[in-house]
Amino acid sequence: MSNPIQSLRQRCDEHLSRVLHAGSGVPPRLLDAMGHGVMAGGKRLRPLLVYGAGQACGAPLDHLDAAAVAIELVHAYSLVHDDLPAMDDDDLRRGQPTVHKAYDEATAILAGDALQALAFEVITRGVDAGASADVVLAQCRELARAAGAAGMAGGQALDLAMVDQSPDLDSLSHMHSLKTGALIQAAVRLGALAGDAGPTQQARLDRYGADIGLAFQIQDDVLDEIGDVAVTGKAVGADRERGKPTYTALLGVEAAQARAQELLARALKALEGLPGDSTLLRAVALQLVNRQH
Amino acid sequence: MSNPIQSLRQRCDEHLSRVLHAGSGVPPRLLDAMGHGVMAGGKRLRPLLVYGAGQACGAPLDHLDAAAVAIELVHAYSLVHDDLPAMDDDDLRRGQPTVHKAYDEATAILAGDALQALAFEVITRGVDAGASADVVLAQCRELARAAGAAGMAGGQALDLAMVDQSPDLDSLSHMHSLKTGALIQAAVRLGALAGDAGPTQQARLDRYGADIGLAFQIQDDVLDEIGDVAVTGKAVGADRERGKPTYTALLGVEAAQARAQELLARALKALEGLPGDSTLLRAVALQLVNRQH
Repeated sequence: MSNPIQSLRQRCDEHLSRVLHAGSGVPPRLLDAMGHGVMAGGKRLRPLLVYGAGQACGAPLDHLDAAAVAIELVHAYSLVHDDLPAMDDDDLRRGQPTVHKAYDEATAILAGDALQALAFEVITRGVDAGASADVVLAQCRELARAAGAAGMAGGQALDLAMVDQSPDLDSLSHMHSLKTGALIQAAVRLGALAGDAGPTQQARLDRYGADIGLAFQIQDDVLDEIGDVAVTGKAVGADRERGKPTYTALLGVEAAQARAQELLARALKALEGLPGDSTLLRAVALQLVNRQH
Repeated sequence: MSNPIQSLRQRCDEHLSRVLHAGSGVPPRLLDAMGHGVMAGGKRLRPLLVYGAGQACGAPLDHLDAAAVAIELVHAYSLVHDDLPAMDDDDLRRGQPTVHKAYDEATAILAGDALQALAFEVITRGVDAGASADVVLAQCRELARAAGAAGMAGGQALDLAMVDQSPDLDSLSHMHSLKTGALIQAAVRLGALAGDAGPTQQARLDRYGADIGLAFQIQDDVLDEIGDVAVTGKAVGADRERGKPTYTALLGVEAAQARAQELLARALKALEGLPGDSTLLRAVALQLVNRQH
């Protein structure tokens, strides 16, 4: 099951590397900082969901590359900005210095800004690969909504406001549904838009997207509590110690793990009614919830 | 001549205010901060250029609103980020506290990020007003390119790298052609795309856009040296004192003023060959270069 995932990750990385080096006229230090933010690894989860949903809806792979790369660029920019001193103030990400540490704060802000712009430039290239202008425009709108104030950026604002607060389960879930859920759901929708998903199919994929988005976050909190430092690269309980509210704090580790498994089961069930090939979506969901880092 | 400008500014402001308040599900403090960044005044130069170029190319006004609003949102986000402590570190803009002063740094970063995303959501709405998907997609790509690493964000990176340096005239002009020129030129192009500009018309409009973009910047530097504090709202010589290279430092005030007038004359001449109504583009160019603040 890991082979198609591996090869699509590589496909995405090749496209990412290409769009980052196609730019002539970009100040070299800024381009380096952008590359540092994008190419330093990562699971490429969102691109995999674009490819997976596209596959499930009969979209050709070529029509999916632009959206897959664009959504990863948005994700990468958000990490660069989230790491800034005024935000989560992280010095390391995946064992490497964060962009503002490797370069400087102004460069990190601008690299993030430029990565977001690049995402919207890249997504328009779907038409060059043969997707229709209507589809690409709908993808562009979906990505913008998910990235913006009613999505990812709004969720990060709520997250910062929650530090040292004691939100209830609903508030915590609402924050995560914006902060990470919106972009994960958008990834699935971008793929579905490229295919010929009807309303029922679309609703099933939305169910899948919402459930794995939340399960992903719960698993994050579980790994923060019981993960192996050598594997996660993060100190145990780091989020808790920073006063970040977590599912494990609210539910306990065992109940949180059980909740993630329930969500996974419901997400996999939602895929059952799909006419297309949902092998990849199934594999991504399993890897996501059962991951150890 | 000020009436059409006035009424288009108002039209743009109404649309801006509408898109900022349409968002349900946006954390209220974030939405306030976004509004603070956008609605605190401003000349709405870029929207006027979208309308003006559209008018010159026969585009209906309704097809231009989305692009006009989108480019102003990009401009507004760039000001919010440029004012940050890690960038230009400004406490005031147009006599009001900057967003990070009125709120906080994290909120200012996120408000800027969300405004950029909103710009790309809004520009897609051109199709809802009747523009073709192909046109709107081309506008989206143009805006993204102009905002990104090879445009505005790249220019800001070059600008920060130039503080306390002594660049020559070419380097200074290159920096400004990215930092402010790219978005001004994009404004003209967005309007032209909505109309039926042929290659010759397009080339004339590009000439106009490049010339007024540069003239705008030179006038900025002139006002920094000889402007009336009460009118500009900025201390005389503020940029010079911060070690920012300026056209007046390189050329002297008189030669800089003469250069701006030359560029204005060339821009107006480029409009002469246009078949459509270039009244608005003419008026905007004059106001831009002869402005006192």
